[in-house]
Amino acid sequence: MKELKLAILGATGAVGREMLLLLEEYQIPVKELRLLSGKKSAGTTLPFCGKNIVVEEATEDSFKGLDYVLGAAENAISLHFAPAIQRSGAVYIDNSSAFRADPVVPLVIPEINGEDAKRHQGIIANPNCSTVIALMAAAPLHALSPIRSMVASTYQAVSGAGAEGQRELHEELIAYALETRRDPVVFPVPIAMNVIPNIGARTANDYTDEEMKMQNEGRRILHLPELRVSCTCVRVPVLRSHSISLNLWTQEKISVAEAADAISKFPGCRLITDSVRDYPTPLDAAGQDTILVGRLREDLTQENGLALWCCGDQIRKGAAANALQILQYLER
Amino acid sequence: MKELKLAILGATGAVGREMLLLLEEYQIPVKELRLLSGKKSAGTTLPFCGKNIVVEEATEDSFKGLDYVLGAAENAISLHFAPAIQRSGAVYIDNSSAFRADPVVPLVIPEINGEDAKRHQGIIANPNCSTVIALMAAAPLHALSPIRSMVASTYQAVSGAGAEGQRELHEELIAYALETRRDPVVFPVPIAMNVIPNIGARTANDYTDEEMKMQNEGRRILHLPELRVSCTCVRVPVLRSHSISLNLWTQEKISVAEAADAISKFPGCRLITDSVRDYPTPLDAAGQDTILVGRLREDLTQENGLALWCCGDQIRKGAAANALQILQYLER
Repeated sequence: MKELKLAILGATGAVGREMLLLLEEYQIPVKELRLLSGKKSAGTTLPFCGKNIVVEEATEDSFKGLDYVLGAAENAISLHFAPAIQRSGAVYIDNSSAFRADPVVPLVIPEINGEDAKRHQGIIANPNCSTVIALMAAAPLHALSPIRSMVASTYQAVSGAGAEGQRELHEELIAYALETRRDPVVFPVPIAMNVIPNIGARTANDYTDEEMKMQNEGRRILHLPELRVSCTCVRVPVLRSHSISLNLWTQEKISVAEAADAISKFPGCRLITDSVRDYPTPLDAAGQDTILVGRLREDLTQENGLALWCCGDQIRKGAAANALQILQYLER
Repeated sequence: MKELKLAILGATGAVGREMLLLLEEYQIPVKELRLLSGKKSAGTTLPFCGKNIVVEEATEDSFKGLDYVLGAAENAISLHFAPAIQRSGAVYIDNSSAFRADPVVPLVIPEINGEDAKRHQGIIANPNCSTVIALMAAAPLHALSPIRSMVASTYQAVSGAGAEGQRELHEELIAYALETRRDPVVFPVPIAMNVIPNIGARTANDYTDEEMKMQNEGRRILHLPELRVSCTCVRVPVLRSHSISLNLWTQEKISVAEAADAISKFPGCRLITDSVRDYPTPLDAAGQDTILVGRLREDLTQENGLALWCCGDQIRKGAAANALQILQYLER
């Protein structure tokens, strides 16, 4: 790979920091690296390859001469800087949801639809975290027979609400142990020893926007404009890594054995078949890019259905890793 | 109600203790109360209506002269004592799963199929906790149009593994706060800040017996021998109260408005419609008999489908309360 000039926009957040770690871990050849943030975090230093890099305030002039900008900022920031990034000629790989529905912006999971990335016009969108994890488990089955529909219930870690979400769970657990009081700030009710079935904003059909992403983004990534997904997104008191209970129905019947074989061979997936414990938990998935799959069995409600359970690190494959893998795909 | 002679078999466990509390709370007229346990717990005293009752070791002679025996013991104990209870003439309301599949034993949720209880031949079975909670939310919809199938993913509290399960989560959380180590004993892996997608023993179709209960018991309770249920049971780090994400499909279409109206009017259910927070969490459900329902909306995958979220106290309506409500139903 040629040496690259890169920036991370939103470098001080949970996803931005993970992108920085992964640039080093993946040994991506970096000629120049700019860490960009809002005014508040500018001046912070972050370690990279044994040096400390000072975070700069992002301005419209920050992107000149770059090959890629890795976006880890929220939608409003992403929308604000996208025109400047495009003018600079850099390819913008954006983890926000700002451009995911834009038909000219490819929405990419490299193992599934990497080819789409090549058709970019300057912006490539990184999908929603739960969508990435569910589709990584579903894609090998889709390759055997097209998916018609899916019912998904998620078990989403507090890392999905950023570093503040992780801090809230941590502090609530400390308060529990010390028998003190700690009122919720990030979530509307306590998340420690609780689960919250409401992530994102409600849409017209009473699903949340987070829940609709699995259908909307799944349609684009799998090239299935008719795909139907009914998703329920639930926050659970897990620090990192999302899990998903997934039932899916395909055009033709796929046997459990065929499904197991396909998942085992799919790059980026691992089917857990250990005789002592043949299912993954979110703790197992934390800190790695691989999506762990288990509990694979026939769905009992309709013909041509399968049920499975999958876990993936929300910050890695659900966000930062997938973005860097898009870059690697384009540069390979 | 006439004054009753009662026993609780397995009085010192989590469900047995709750039955004792509820006998007092429900003001059931008690003429005589025998608290029975295994040898190890015999001699313990438990408070009831301002007095302390000494727990006795259960023997075949423990049941003579009783009107009801409330069973809160595990399957082997239940099977062992059932013949002696039947000989005594007492009605045995059993919370174990030992008799739930027996066609001569009614399996009863009073709000749904209370009439079935009257056909008992000495034993009445109390359903599985997640099944009770899911069916309480589904039954009002079933009354509008028969249910064909359901996909359920559970979020089950550690109380489902008894007092030891609750102790394990508590001690793991304390260890986290104190940065010490506490290896799992009750569960195969840590449950604190984790979720475990495996409850019960595997059956031939790779579902667990816990997962198959929702179909097997649902068929008996709803009088739907063809009901199809695909369930995934997941343990979550919640101390008490189970939650279930449920998609269900009926013969004819039920609008969301009709469904909301039916759930609101169903005894023992409450539809959460508060404008600030229109969904329940397990913390909300703890300590009450009512099943809380929210997130009611159309299923997006098939015709005639609905999706909802429900929470219920696993030890109360999921176990002890339902057993006492069966007694109340028979005595009213």
